[in-house]
Amino acid sequence: MSTPMTQTPASEMMKLLDDLSIFSAPGSGVTRLLYTSEWSQAQLFLQERMAGFGLKVETDKVGNVYGRLVGRNPDDKVILTGSHVDTVVNGGKYDGAYGIAAAITAIHYLHETFGQPLRSLEVVSFCEEEGSRFPLTFWGSGHVTGMYDGSEADTCADSEGITLRTAMAECGYGSSDDTMNQSIDLIKRDDIKAFVELHIEQGILLEKTSKQIGIVQAIAGQRRFTVRVSGTANHAGTTPMNMRADALTGTAEMLLLLERLAGEAGEPLVATSGRLEIIPNTPNVIPGEVQFTLDIRHSEAEKLERFCTDILSAFNEIAAKRGLTMELTPRLSAPPAPMNSELCHDLERICQKQGRSYRNMVSGAGHDAQLFAPRCPTAMIFVPSRDGISHSPAEYSSTEELGAGLEVLTELLYELAYKEI
Amino acid sequence: MSTPMTQTPASEMMKLLDDLSIFSAPGSGVTRLLYTSEWSQAQLFLQERMAGFGLKVETDKVGNVYGRLVGRNPDDKVILTGSHVDTVVNGGKYDGAYGIAAAITAIHYLHETFGQPLRSLEVVSFCEEEGSRFPLTFWGSGHVTGMYDGSEADTCADSEGITLRTAMAECGYGSSDDTMNQSIDLIKRDDIKAFVELHIEQGILLEKTSKQIGIVQAIAGQRRFTVRVSGTANHAGTTPMNMRADALTGTAEMLLLLERLAGEAGEPLVATSGRLEIIPNTPNVIPGEVQFTLDIRHSEAEKLERFCTDILSAFNEIAAKRGLTMELTPRLSAPPAPMNSELCHDLERICQKQGRSYRNMVSGAGHDAQLFAPRCPTAMIFVPSRDGISHSPAEYSSTEELGAGLEVLTELLYELAYKEI
Repeated sequence: MSTPMTQTPASEMMKLLDDLSIFSAPGSGVTRLLYTSEWSQAQLFLQERMAGFGLKVETDKVGNVYGRLVGRNPDDKVILTGSHVDTVVNGGKYDGAYGIAAAITAIHYLHETFGQPLRSLEVVSFCEEEGSRFPLTFWGSGHVTGMYDGSEADTCADSEGITLRTAMAECGYGSSDDTMNQSIDLIKRDDIKAFVELHIEQGILLEKTSKQIGIVQAIAGQRRFTVRVSGTANHAGTTPMNMRADALTGTAEMLLLLERLAGEAGEPLVATSGRLEIIPNTPNVIPGEVQFTLDIRHSEAEKLERFCTDILSAFNEIAAKRGLTMELTPRLSAPPAPMNSELCHDLERICQKQGRSYRNMVSGAGHDAQLFAPRCPTAMIFVPSRDGISHSPAEYSSTEELGAGLEVLTELLYELAYKEI
Repeated sequence: MSTPMTQTPASEMMKLLDDLSIFSAPGSGVTRLLYTSEWSQAQLFLQERMAGFGLKVETDKVGNVYGRLVGRNPDDKVILTGSHVDTVVNGGKYDGAYGIAAAITAIHYLHETFGQPLRSLEVVSFCEEEGSRFPLTFWGSGHVTGMYDGSEADTCADSEGITLRTAMAECGYGSSDDTMNQSIDLIKRDDIKAFVELHIEQGILLEKTSKQIGIVQAIAGQRRFTVRVSGTANHAGTTPMNMRADALTGTAEMLLLLERLAGEAGEPLVATSGRLEIIPNTPNVIPGEVQFTLDIRHSEAEKLERFCTDILSAFNEIAAKRGLTMELTPRLSAPPAPMNSELCHDLERICQKQGRSYRNMVSGAGHDAQLFAPRCPTAMIFVPSRDGISHSPAEYSSTEELGAGLEVLTELLYELAYKEI
């Protein structure tokens, strides 16, 4: 039994988003960290809402929540759509939550309008993606896709020293004996035919280019490094300019070159140094050591690799020329995740049919979809973020923008779940 | 009555330096902060040593220690020489202490060799110069020259919240009623004919140019600023290179220009950014704000001023070009302090006579002598610092180097105190 739709899908979705945003720790914006009470309440609220819409609700061992509209061919693989329920500290109400609220609303609408689908249609609220409480990311989709097997829960603790295992147990998850919350034992799933994720862009490209919809062609690969530049700390007053080995001005030369070469490489390459520490960091001492981070992203593995090789070799030349030494520590290497090209074409066609402006684009940010991309046909749809702001209470997209994304998602889900192939 | 000299002046001085270095807080190197027990013991030790050499010992209200060899014309103004007894945390055993030990030894030697001088010859051990415990500098020489009047003692506290007034009182100083330590009521002195300070260079210039003696022509003026560069914090993955307002790469362009223009300006100009902080300082966020310090020094006021004006105007252009805003806060403006040119010529003549290699130079570091320079003929003599290292347990100058400085000082003091003018 499903509650009838008494308002437009967009209104229903906005109401659901508002309702969901209540589940937050105190403070500005929304703070919903993994396995906290506000997180538990949010997942419970979603289960109730899904059940109310006639979906078959299940949770798994790590707390992912599923709501299934069972298809006429129940042995067929499932069309899965959704996003993550957790947020960063003082985050916004759209990041993650939008993808869940839109998925529930789309399935509700399709059910009301077209009845039972051919193939099962399922919404997922992933337990975690942000890495805001524990030092790992994709705890939800990483289990579903087999990247994690749960053994990480013992070695990983939050800033208060609570292990992931303990936090899970306190919420009633983690053990297969525990029947308090979980209703399915299986976490890793091999029954998914396609995965579709709708998300706010968290960037400024759609707004700047006045497009309603971004069709993600690939989620960029990422390389992260820490670079340590060592020179000689010395007295700022007594050391002539030509007798210095200043780690900070050496670093400045590297960062300017990084910016210039990244600009010349062109989109979608981005390169950023976001964190920098000086030793000793004293106004009257020439910096003896600087440590800074590098974050380099591109949608093509080969171009990403080549840029990293070139820039690091140029950094080494700058260091050598200045009598500095340089030490490099790789921190992260995530390959690019191309989205399914057929689904991308379907999305283009849907946008054209609905008369929406759209652009093909690369997602510079990571998303749950990147874990599904190597395993099943995967698609990702973006809507504009005002001023490109995200991970902030100021995160905002208008009802019209969010509603456009919902309609594109709904149409794609219809094609995937209702149409004869 | 004076203890006879039983060894060479250089040996006596080295012994005194060694003895003085015992008075230190635990830890590597020498730590002797103002009004601590090790500082008290050091000043007491110096009083005893001065008295033992037949000098008339006095202390003033802030704990400066004087030892006077009274001249035949006691109404004539005094020839004063010495340096500061305090150190930085984990400092070396030469910074400050060398100027005191050499002054005591020189006066002892002159007394033994030539008897009573015409003019009174006096050594001073200033209580404080470094600013290591309380957030002010020159607490000793600043009182002697009238820069301070003691009122600062109530508003100034160390990192544990102990006011300067309390710290003074605990050592028996600060009140004119208190007769425990101080023997002279007058702090500010108008009876000084000339001031001479011998000091380690704390720079690398003498070593690099193989000179035994540095004749300081001027102590550089200093301008310090804090610069705040503001752009837009944004997602490192989702913000294309050409849509960024990155405060860190803007800062990098400023720092590279600073380095280039300072190099082109040539000696003795030096310009340094020693401290830099980023907000939010997160690897995957484009820096929205950077705050950094500027420390610019030159021996000529006009050139110092012009360089500051030019570089800050160039910084503003860089900020404007990049869509960043820039905010400037002046932190310090200390004018250059030229040394007395007649005394500089005397030192040149003495070096030539003694067959010593020397160079005229600017002191990029601040010294007690800069407070005397506007008030009486003042001279400053440098000896080499190994590798230019100072404010470190690794601070080192050889006995030969320190001995050469002692002989130059001794000769100048002889000329100033014993010769008919």
